[in-house]
Amino acid sequence: MSRTSTARARLVDSARELIHSSNYGAASVQDLCSAAKVNKGSFYYFFPSKRDLVLAALDVQWANAKAKVLEPSFAADAPPLERILRFFRRAAQAQNRPVVLGCPFGNLAVEMATLDETIRDRVRDVFQGYQGYFEGAIAEAIAAGDIEPRDVSAAAEALLAYFQGALLLAKTRNDAGTIERLGPAAMNLLGAKHGC
Amino acid sequence: MSRTSTARARLVDSARELIHSSNYGAASVQDLCSAAKVNKGSFYYFFPSKRDLVLAALDVQWANAKAKVLEPSFAADAPPLERILRFFRRAAQAQNRPVVLGCPFGNLAVEMATLDETIRDRVRDVFQGYQGYFEGAIAEAIAAGDIEPRDVSAAAEALLAYFQGALLLAKTRNDAGTIERLGPAAMNLLGAKHGC
Repeated sequence: MSRTSTARARLVDSARELIHSSNYGAASVQDLCSAAKVNKGSFYYFFPSKRDLVLAALDVQWANAKAKVLEPSFAADAPPLERILRFFRRAAQAQNRPVVLGCPFGNLAVEMATLDETIRDRVRDVFQGYQGYFEGAIAEAIAAGDIEPRDVSAAAEALLAYFQGALLLAKTRNDAGTIERLGPAAMNLLGAKHGC
Repeated sequence: MSRTSTARARLVDSARELIHSSNYGAASVQDLCSAAKVNKGSFYYFFPSKRDLVLAALDVQWANAKAKVLEPSFAADAPPLERILRFFRRAAQAQNRPVVLGCPFGNLAVEMATLDETIRDRVRDVFQGYQGYFEGAIAEAIAAGDIEPRDVSAAAEALLAYFQGALLLAKTRNDAGTIERLGPAAMNLLGAKHGC
């Protein structure tokens, strides 16, 4: 990797970490440059603005979320409803740090939605990605007779809301256990025949 | 009301409105003073810091949420599960503006939880207040036989997560209709006998 491309990658990594652990507004361009050990000239060589860096960071974060949480959770080696339960467990594990940071996507949407439509719409698209995984599992659960037939897209939307709310509560209480505890009731939300 | 007390009240009102429509970090002390038509000397006479103003604003916002949404939604003139459904409808109405602003409490928690424990804990307490309303309705629904007996506190926590997630999605899509659409599935989450 060339010197410049590693500088770019360091900026993206710093943005992911710094914004997730504080927030978008609190992480100044100077903070991001310092964390990445890059000067401001290099920053503006790669990114016209902080927003552009954040959009690049969101792409990496979404790739990570798929690779580390969504793909392993929704792999076909478990029955469809069990995939959803392990998704909640994996998310709880990912949040289990000294300080619960919440969802990097939900965080950005909540902080920035009214101030930056581009960031808001990018998070909306990521959420559609989550919903796609949920829809696959719900459709299979219906086909397997584990839940009654229902509007798959509406059920996935409800699950997405519930999941985002679980992360929001966990962050507000600084307690990742909240996510693990709330997971099983997702079965009720989906109308599973053996809900809790 | 004395001149000084109206200045204080104007600061609190400006903080509620400005922070709800942008966010905590974006609303500077200068912005808050300008919106309230108060000079910085007066600001610091009433509030040692922006955080102190925000804590005062949260108290007023919580009183408003109770008076305008929670009390009318959870009044005993409707069966307990219908109270929960109308709570979602009222919340959707409250969010139905040119720009969906989301929950003032959830917004602050998400933006500030990792940076300010005092704000985070105040939101956690407000959430406990919401949960209290939910617990009352759920306990009555169990007593009336509308839902199977269950852990009332756990069910109320799940409903709180679902509600906060619904507001988060609505803000991310700038679509208050999301909240109204998600309301009925709260009945499934609670294990209502006639869920959807």
